[in-house]
Amino acid sequence: MEKKEFPQNQVDLYQQIKWNGWGDTRKFLHQVKPEGFVALTTPSVSAQPLPSLKGFIKKELSLPTDDPNKPFELEETPSLRIEDIKIHAPKQYPEFVKELKAFFSADQLKDDKLARITHTFGKSIRDLIRVRIGLIKYAPDLIVLPHSHEEVEKLVQLAQKWNVVIIPMGGGSNIVGAIEPVSDDRFTVSIDMRRMNKVLWVDRKEMTACIQVGVMGPHLEEQLNKQGVSLGHDPDSFEFSTLGGWLATCSSGHQSDKYGDIEDMAVSFRTVTPTGTLELRNGARAGAGINYKHIILGSEGTLGIITEAVMKVHAVPQAAEYYGFLFPSFNHAVAALQQIRSSEIIPTMIRIYDPEETALSFASKPSKGPIAEFMSAAVKKYLHYVRSFDFKSVCLSIIGFEGPKKVVDFHRNSVFDILSKNGAFGLGSAPGKTWAEKRYDLPYIRDFLLDHNMWVDVAETTVSYTNLVPLWKEAKQAFQQHFRSQGIPSWICAHISHTYSNGVCLYFIFASKQNSDKDMKQYIEAKGLMTDIILKYGGALSHHHAVGYEHVPWMTRYVSKGWIQVYRKLKETFDPKDICNPRKLIPTIKEENNQEPYLFNVINIKNPKL
Amino acid sequence: MEKKEFPQNQVDLYQQIKWNGWGDTRKFLHQVKPEGFVALTTPSVSAQPLPSLKGFIKKELSLPTDDPNKPFELEETPSLRIEDIKIHAPKQYPEFVKELKAFFSADQLKDDKLARITHTFGKSIRDLIRVRIGLIKYAPDLIVLPHSHEEVEKLVQLAQKWNVVIIPMGGGSNIVGAIEPVSDDRFTVSIDMRRMNKVLWVDRKEMTACIQVGVMGPHLEEQLNKQGVSLGHDPDSFEFSTLGGWLATCSSGHQSDKYGDIEDMAVSFRTVTPTGTLELRNGARAGAGINYKHIILGSEGTLGIITEAVMKVHAVPQAAEYYGFLFPSFNHAVAALQQIRSSEIIPTMIRIYDPEETALSFASKPSKGPIAEFMSAAVKKYLHYVRSFDFKSVCLSIIGFEGPKKVVDFHRNSVFDILSKNGAFGLGSAPGKTWAEKRYDLPYIRDFLLDHNMWVDVAETTVSYTNLVPLWKEAKQAFQQHFRSQGIPSWICAHISHTYSNGVCLYFIFASKQNSDKDMKQYIEAKGLMTDIILKYGGALSHHHAVGYEHVPWMTRYVSKGWIQVYRKLKETFDPKDICNPRKLIPTIKEENNQEPYLFNVINIKNPKL
Repeated sequence: MEKKEFPQNQVDLYQQIKWNGWGDTRKFLHQVKPEGFVALTTPSVSAQPLPSLKGFIKKELSLPTDDPNKPFELEETPSLRIEDIKIHAPKQYPEFVKELKAFFSADQLKDDKLARITHTFGKSIRDLIRVRIGLIKYAPDLIVLPHSHEEVEKLVQLAQKWNVVIIPMGGGSNIVGAIEPVSDDRFTVSIDMRRMNKVLWVDRKEMTACIQVGVMGPHLEEQLNKQGVSLGHDPDSFEFSTLGGWLATCSSGHQSDKYGDIEDMAVSFRTVTPTGTLELRNGARAGAGINYKHIILGSEGTLGIITEAVMKVHAVPQAAEYYGFLFPSFNHAVAALQQIRSSEIIPTMIRIYDPEETALSFASKPSKGPIAEFMSAAVKKYLHYVRSFDFKSVCLSIIGFEGPKKVVDFHRNSVFDILSKNGAFGLGSAPGKTWAEKRYDLPYIRDFLLDHNMWVDVAETTVSYTNLVPLWKEAKQAFQQHFRSQGIPSWICAHISHTYSNGVCLYFIFASKQNSDKDMKQYIEAKGLMTDIILKYGGALSHHHAVGYEHVPWMTRYVSKGWIQVYRKLKETFDPKDICNPRKLIPTIKEENNQEPYLFNVINIKNPKL
Repeated sequence: MEKKEFPQNQVDLYQQIKWNGWGDTRKFLHQVKPEGFVALTTPSVSAQPLPSLKGFIKKELSLPTDDPNKPFELEETPSLRIEDIKIHAPKQYPEFVKELKAFFSADQLKDDKLARITHTFGKSIRDLIRVRIGLIKYAPDLIVLPHSHEEVEKLVQLAQKWNVVIIPMGGGSNIVGAIEPVSDDRFTVSIDMRRMNKVLWVDRKEMTACIQVGVMGPHLEEQLNKQGVSLGHDPDSFEFSTLGGWLATCSSGHQSDKYGDIEDMAVSFRTVTPTGTLELRNGARAGAGINYKHIILGSEGTLGIITEAVMKVHAVPQAAEYYGFLFPSFNHAVAALQQIRSSEIIPTMIRIYDPEETALSFASKPSKGPIAEFMSAAVKKYLHYVRSFDFKSVCLSIIGFEGPKKVVDFHRNSVFDILSKNGAFGLGSAPGKTWAEKRYDLPYIRDFLLDHNMWVDVAETTVSYTNLVPLWKEAKQAFQQHFRSQGIPSWICAHISHTYSNGVCLYFIFASKQNSDKDMKQYIEAKGLMTDIILKYGGALSHHHAVGYEHVPWMTRYVSKGWIQVYRKLKETFDPKDICNPRKLIPTIKEENNQEPYLFNVINIKNPKL
């Protein structure tokens, strides 16, 4: 019975997904000794060599004091084992738990160490540094695993009655602190939504599907594909995030240029709030008052818990083609992008890597990968001498087309024409294939760096076309200057991942050596630096990573004091006792008035300043 | 100076736009005596004959008691002249007006009869019946005509200070009572936004424009077109409505299938509320908290006043082609529509008229119009005998394509292929041209019917593909049955005007003889009947006409009690004294508890029942 209802739980998700890193416990990068090369192990392949990666790390992140004549060694800084981690005992709240047990079976309640640690953190760099050294201050006291909307209603009613904090968790992939329990004297329940993982119905006439929102990406697509349809939402976190998480954080997938962002796909959903369940009307666009769905989308669990959603779906595309291109420079690529947008023939995906990320992309490929083959000496010579490509400034782009074959043909031909006029060099479909295969793998490299005394983080925004290149330049320069002035090796790259008529998502990835004291100051400074520059250029505080507590210090500046006050009223309306994911999304009055520090500034900082 | 700033005001808008009917005072239908045919007079053409219209009216709306052997006479029921209308004197509020005069010049304040009557009503059938017989209970006490955002701020501050009701009015074309002052002891200001009519800037790189929202459709497009861009928002009311009205009511234009509804075009705007001005961030899509723009869009002036908006624009299309088609039946047309949507090649516009509206469309054309020519005896014969068209069930469709020539060619060819496979008969571009020329004219026919003891009203909704044909059938049958049982001639037709992946806008037009007592009961019954059936089939309470007070009795059923309570909190937050357009959009607590009647049920009803 349970196997049938919860196929994902045939394997225990807590065992299957890393508690101290990204993703599948059976997938990781590691050094192969004694040769010393870096390799990737997956459930199907053991120790596939990534022969260029170590050299790339050496080039970009070795200390100036390293002796270049000695073999480059990666310093090992392994995570603690779970058995060596100590966490506080769960708080006791027998009255609440007794009532809970009347409605939930024993296997729906967990308070073992692995579950509690899994529910303490997301996957931000701050999260991973803390969990790897066992720095766990506030773990949830109990994990509840509901099976249905009705069970969520029961849980929220009891939480409201007993003043218990509730934090919904989907896949736990969030990187802005959105699911972390924070200082609170109250009993805290983290809700594992992942047993609510069924597609309830598909309506092929309206092209909609009703879905329990705890379903994770692959399992959702598996169920939809069986009925010939797809959601088409494919964020970096796809394998380890849920529909509910996507809705609550305003997620966006790789193919958003065609299928839209999550808010465009969401038709209606049910939200369980402490003051009652709110239902939205299923149906196409209406003009009869305000559109209430937008009050819940992006509320990050602070107003209530989404349980079931009606989503737009589309036919599984007849054709899906992804191609690689090289541009002589980032400016060439941006010019081509703007011309493509003006042509009104928009590909399904336009990704543009800057020169640094292009280099990383080549360096992290297996030796016999298609791009490595493509970039033969002859091709390199041709590009350099005939096309005048400077390989220091070359940019890789992956451009995709999905849909009916006829549409894909028309779009591809039109877009290729613009690309060629803008100096792009076509690499064929092999880089697209590699991108599709490897698109979820970057966080595994991050784990490997953490294993070797380095850290890597990301920052992303939506920025106008006017400010795109200036922001890209200034952020990179400022980041490098910041670390250079401290004598710490650092590296930064960026790519464009989503495009709109009035701007793009610009996504930075940056890495550095760890400070020896494992302090968060380095992260805090880098994150603050990047965020200030993003806002200076009118960028969004986040394009798709959401707010959590990590972006709260900038929220008032970003959305204005007036709108923050409006949000407070909404919060009072839905959640008068503030039991829903407290201290997330907007500043507290005390934070706003400098009477208490922002969580961002204090969590895991040795000497926090208010 | 003023001429330069307010070109529209070179002509006094109050003189130019009818106070007792639709649109331009120089444009109207009338009978030409002694011949008795109906003709259309416009500023450029005098008495253009519409030779089939009178016969159509006779066929559809003559009484069973009319002698078919006598010439059919239209009973004349003219509107009162303005000089014969009496309205209450404006309330006096010298303290408030004194402060107002410190900031506004004399020409920005009006309390003459024409202005006050113009600002009393929109253009619904209830509005027109009342204004034509001079039934004016609550006219605004003062009209204020601000020139800038800052002046609106000043006005709202003073209104808040002195507890004065404020109602923003754009073009005044609303047909759900959204701008009508209602029973209130307080001094009431209606705000004429139309002097705020400038495009402040156009950004060709981001394809956005910042616009003062009082600008009316043609003047907006004129300013944008000069810079090579267009908003692409073209509702039926285009000539006599404003951007602010479109935003406040969630408007939708004829070409929404390509350019989106107004909420898709709106990037950001400034809203002046009694508790302060709220600004939205200009920029492309973000995922950092909830999207506050959706709290204002559709709020119909109940939360505050939108003053300036940044809107997405697009290049003036290189090609714009509109074609006419005939389908053997409504079902054929709907099947073709669904196939077009599945093909992912979506035209700019797909309008499908049902057989009755097809007949009206042919009957209201000038004699030498292109469609009349097209439908020669030979073509009719061909369709009847070769293609088996039954002219009683034939449906006209207008399908349009806009954009770069290459895109239009591709879309046209693909869509034509689907149309032909679904039995459509192509009429070429002439019907498209006629549609484009005549698309704003239907309300002038309504005025003519009111001049001749008939009334016509409309009801529209968004309905799923599954429920489209059942709703279409049941609503028409129920409407006809309702009037037939009372022995009153009536007529009803419908068209599909906007399409989505999960439904369409279905738009009904219905007419009947007036009741002799000019009572609203007939309207109330017909409107209630249509709305109940729409909601029974899961339709939206409105696709683009908004709520006003006319849809309030159904709002709780439509959006749920929970969301109404959320809206009340928003209202308290923005407008604690309820000065902003009171009694619109949601029911009062008293209405909800049956302690006072809905305005819908009592305004101009002789014997209202609670």
